[in-house]
Amino acid sequence: MGTDRRLHFTSDYMEGAHPLILRRLAETNLEQSAGYGEDTYTAAAREKIRAACGTPEADVFFLAGGTQTNAVLTGALLRPWQGVISARSGHISVHEAGAIEAGGHKVLALEHRDGKLSAETVRACAEEYRQDENRDHMVEPGMVYISHPTEYGTLYSLAELEALSAVCREYGMPLYLDGARLAYALACPENDVALPDIGRLCDAFYIGGTKCGTLFGEAAVIPKHGAVPHLFTMIKQRGALLAKGRIPAIQFDVLFTDGLYLEIGKPAIETAARIREALDRKGYEQAFPNPTNQILIVLDEEQAEALSPKVEMSFMERMPDGRILMRIATSWATTAADTDRLIECL
Amino acid sequence: MGTDRRLHFTSDYMEGAHPLILRRLAETNLEQSAGYGEDTYTAAAREKIRAACGTPEADVFFLAGGTQTNAVLTGALLRPWQGVISARSGHISVHEAGAIEAGGHKVLALEHRDGKLSAETVRACAEEYRQDENRDHMVEPGMVYISHPTEYGTLYSLAELEALSAVCREYGMPLYLDGARLAYALACPENDVALPDIGRLCDAFYIGGTKCGTLFGEAAVIPKHGAVPHLFTMIKQRGALLAKGRIPAIQFDVLFTDGLYLEIGKPAIETAARIREALDRKGYEQAFPNPTNQILIVLDEEQAEALSPKVEMSFMERMPDGRILMRIATSWATTAADTDRLIECL
Amino acid sequence: MGTDRRLHFTSDYMEGAHPLILRRLAETNLEQSAGYGEDTYTAAAREKIRAACGTPEADVFFLAGGTQTNAVLTGALLRPWQGVISARSGHISVHEAGAIEAGGHKVLALEHRDGKLSAETVRACAEEYRQDENRDHMVEPGMVYISHPTEYGTLYSLAELEALSAVCREYGMPLYLDGARLAYALACPENDVALPDIGRLCDAFYIGGTKCGTLFGEAAVIPKHGAVPHLFTMIKQRGALLAKGRIPAIQFDVLFTDGLYLEIGKPAIETAARIREALDRKGYEQAFPNPTNQILIVLDEEQAEALSPKVEMSFMERMPDGRILMRIATSWATTAADTDRLIECL
Amino acid sequence: MGTDRRLHFTSDYMEGAHPLILRRLAETNLEQSAGYGEDTYTAAAREKIRAACGTPEADVFFLAGGTQTNAVLTGALLRPWQGVISARSGHISVHEAGAIEAGGHKVLALEHRDGKLSAETVRACAEEYRQDENRDHMVEPGMVYISHPTEYGTLYSLAELEALSAVCREYGMPLYLDGARLAYALACPENDVALPDIGRLCDAFYIGGTKCGTLFGEAAVIPKHGAVPHLFTMIKQRGALLAKGRIPAIQFDVLFTDGLYLEIGKPAIETAARIREALDRKGYEQAFPNPTNQILIVLDEEQAEALSPKVEMSFMERMPDGRILMRIATSWATTAADTDRLIECL
Repeated sequence: MGTDRRLHFTSDYMEGAHPLILRRLAETNLEQSAGYGEDTYTAAAREKIRAACGTPEADVFFLAGGTQTNAVLTGALLRPWQGVISARSGHISVHEAGAIEAGGHKVLALEHRDGKLSAETVRACAEEYRQDENRDHMVEPGMVYISHPTEYGTLYSLAELEALSAVCREYGMPLYLDGARLAYALACPENDVALPDIGRLCDAFYIGGTKCGTLFGEAAVIPKHGAVPHLFTMIKQRGALLAKGRIPAIQFDVLFTDGLYLEIGKPAIETAARIREALDRKGYEQAFPNPTNQILIVLDEEQAEALSPKVEMSFMERMPDGRILMRIATSWATTAADTDRLIECL
Repeated sequence: MGTDRRLHFTSDYMEGAHPLILRRLAETNLEQSAGYGEDTYTAAAREKIRAACGTPEADVFFLAGGTQTNAVLTGALLRPWQGVISARSGHISVHEAGAIEAGGHKVLALEHRDGKLSAETVRACAEEYRQDENRDHMVEPGMVYISHPTEYGTLYSLAELEALSAVCREYGMPLYLDGARLAYALACPENDVALPDIGRLCDAFYIGGTKCGTLFGEAAVIPKHGAVPHLFTMIKQRGALLAKGRIPAIQFDVLFTDGLYLEIGKPAIETAARIREALDRKGYEQAFPNPTNQILIVLDEEQAEALSPKVEMSFMERMPDGRILMRIATSWATTAADTDRLIECL
Repeated sequence: MGTDRRLHFTSDYMEGAHPLILRRLAETNLEQSAGYGEDTYTAAAREKIRAACGTPEADVFFLAGGTQTNAVLTGALLRPWQGVISARSGHISVHEAGAIEAGGHKVLALEHRDGKLSAETVRACAEEYRQDENRDHMVEPGMVYISHPTEYGTLYSLAELEALSAVCREYGMPLYLDGARLAYALACPENDVALPDIGRLCDAFYIGGTKCGTLFGEAAVIPKHGAVPHLFTMIKQRGALLAKGRIPAIQFDVLFTDGLYLEIGKPAIETAARIREALDRKGYEQAFPNPTNQILIVLDEEQAEALSPKVEMSFMERMPDGRILMRIATSWATTAADTDRLIECL
Repeated sequence: MGTDRRLHFTSDYMEGAHPLILRRLAETNLEQSAGYGEDTYTAAAREKIRAACGTPEADVFFLAGGTQTNAVLTGALLRPWQGVISARSGHISVHEAGAIEAGGHKVLALEHRDGKLSAETVRACAEEYRQDENRDHMVEPGMVYISHPTEYGTLYSLAELEALSAVCREYGMPLYLDGARLAYALACPENDVALPDIGRLCDAFYIGGTKCGTLFGEAAVIPKHGAVPHLFTMIKQRGALLAKGRIPAIQFDVLFTDGLYLEIGKPAIETAARIREALDRKGYEQAFPNPTNQILIVLDEEQAEALSPKVEMSFMERMPDGRILMRIATSWATTAADTDRLIECL
């Protein structure tokens, strides 16, 4: 972005880390600690996450990024004859360069509503498999992947998550939640899914760091201790084991101290609300209405050409009618000043 | 290591980052930059690494860790019918939890001397394959993996590396160098392999960050631009693409500013020399003599019991005679005071 | 089937082999020949197939079955960052238990018409990938899979195949044709795609044996010699190399002697035509109208219950309205007597 | 071998099938049966194999070839963090083109004696893993692969097999036996390992057909029903499910009728004994002394040049001293006349 004078609302990973995190990394910098997550900082961060999620016995691991975490946990939860159910728009289905398939598994991509899978859709898929006389020639639905917020910024309600979890348990499929942007869900007044709900309803999930205030890092959580055997070795095998395990752990320790993770997304939500209101006022078409930090707008060529020299946004997809779906993303670091300037530009 | 009062010479990844790195991360923290390595910091770090390696057109990528980098590059360099030649003691052969095989390729583990592969050994393997009438039923040796320093801390001489490179080119096998601890080689007066030699003789390599002063991160270098097609996507597919690509890049930018990478290993080398001399004086048996930061000693049970309450070392392997091979590792952060105390304990 | 007194129109792999094949296997039985396809029978069969396909330099291999052949050739044609385009109804997409994904590749399932992919659909997919700004995070469409006849028995016209081939070549994607039931296409008067057309328009294909008169076996053909390097070893690695390579080769030698392969499907086509006419007359709803040996009928529960004690058919899929799609398959071995009895039952 | 006038003692897969097998295939040829092993012939063959092995509840599947069977069962028995122990000379380690690694698993190649793994070697490997402090960074030994007869024709004694099985069960590692040439073991007076011993001591094994009298096909046996879940689908996924499942089944049905499988190897054993005696008499150096159908001789260049125009043998490996190890293989179909002629040539 350097000499680029545009406003940047491209993504929620444009800045470094929350200042408290950098400060803590500096304070602890020359201490010595054991490698590979066997240090006291990792132990402390794990304990705080267990407490926040209401999962006292959970296995917790800190990995570097989201695609990696999805690939490791999917690979660990599935058996070779199984695939993972995902919304057709799911990150693992579209934007992870075939990581799941590279690990040997099919993504069973299902229809969604605003990026969300419904319990009914999942049940229909599981049931169809059970009733298909050729099922032994087919990939068994072995787990369910959802993201919260979704790739379109939308949120599951607690009732929806309860229903999904119930179907998954009925059919013996682990429910996995990709929480890359979880802090932005937790900061929304509209969200009624709390961390302990996720801990109770999901069989594995990750709490996003990279997009929620850390330099990098995601916290993978398996609520039931030992449910995924040899996970440490699987993480190593996938190249996802950090030698200096304390570096992501310290960052999560800060995020889970004094409730920071529940607060850190609030500026993003507040600025997004202001931007949405301005967009409405100025007649832009918003798609996938949602209360989180991703604002999706449909632009025709003229609009795109007018906005693009002033604001950098993110390309999402080309619509069947030729218009493009663009994303304005706010983050924990978005300033009121930039938000004011953006609103002026619209 | 918290309340543990022992001295810690376990590894070279016990501390955080070089203070200049932390300072630079703090200075740039709230700047905004593009994701996935498309930012100006990444561009700058790439340029500095190209200059230091004498590879002006090199493709450079920053990944999180060593096993990951080995897995990505091995997977990208090999075709499906090929395997990778490695010393039997090579990290990819022993301590990466089968990451290469999980990617579909055999590690062709060959005999070594002090952790080093010789050109003759590599030639014999390639030649044996060519002459075997059953070769079409066998894995083709498709590339060669070496580490410098090796897992036992030993160094290739320039002549040895030249010979290996010549054999590899004769047989059309890319030569790949794992430089997890490269800074410690470069800091040794005994080392005659400079970065431009590696740039000239290898087809791919990585410059270690995690063990050489960064919080995390390795710099993968492909001297010949485009030699590994679609590498960005392969990195993404393996879960090795960092959203905040600038974070490792800034760290490498610091390491490659004012020659820091050539200097950072020196304290480790100096303290290791002092420790080696003391070990000799006190009659300890050293194995795999080498000039780098890994000191390997053979301990019987009595010696191990005497030392272990005072110094934490790292377990390497059990010898056929029942004694154990332990490692004392120094690092860029090892202090003279700790070194003095260690020498007293011996 | 044993004591089962029903008529069997379940599939085209219910009988053994064409009598000429069994006779030839018996004649050659105690001869000695080299293994792994290096025998003179394999050489002869290859030569006949090359001649029939108008591909004098083609590489030809004999494998045991269709899923295996699809998996081997897809794995050999794709690079790690690529996936294979297929109709959503394609065998590799639905009924091969995730074999393509187990080999590390995504099946890019596209919309079809009666089981057929159109050139336009393929072009749109390739173009969308090219124009997507996130394409480096996505699986590249790397080849196109079609079946002829399709899974629904339908046929590509020569014009359609020409158009598909042109798009594939324009975008650098090999076109692969699954000919599991190719003999039934070649026996149809409606078919205008001859073997030399396939040899000219496809980059790889297989000529089906198992469903077209052999005990087992498929002939994989790569028109351009050497286009798929190390294919012998890839076949071995996938467990698809038969030690007694002459056994499938002799069967194909018979099929490609005196034009048998062009004739063998005719009884299936003739009996299918009679059955179709009877179905129409009796008011059954046929789906996916086609001239080949697979007749697809839509049955409600009552119809299914009436027919099922008399005729064994094959379950295809459950329709959204609850009715089921069933398949009546004829084969090279279907008799006039059984066909008469079937028509009486309807 | 066509116009080649040499004697052929290259392998035990040079001829077609035992005449009784061909006859039975002809008798049943135009019968109709269900596909994919759901027919009555498959059921019958399974029952006979269960009876012969003393494993009344065994799961039995018929696959096309040995590499395929090894790959499918290894993939099904191992979890992702595990590898398979094999003798360094094991077929899966050397001559299957990396099939195990292509399936994601490391072959842990151990020292052998005459191609055999000892219980002590296996125990040492398992124990070393358990005691290695870095084991979580390493591949866990997850199963043991042996062949009987081995690649060098040698045989395990019952005591050796009992000991291996005991170690495997102590460490929770399934014992898998590759019986590609099992009929030749069973035909040896020296062999004291009967089929029920294998059924009792192994957790999975296959009974070789291709090298023991069938056109193709191996019978995979899992003594404990259900021990390998979803095996049908795994077989399909690997491309190893034969549509006409009855074709290999009928062949095994013949082999397991009236004890043919116990008899079929006898001519091979008798002719091999005569050849061995002649070799001794004429001063050839035999390696890996064994009582089965593979005779291994060490030839210098002069000897090789003298023999090679008269007898085709099989190349095994080049010895460190430059001489070559060649194999003379007899089979169920080897004639007394050819044996006489061979002896004359020596």
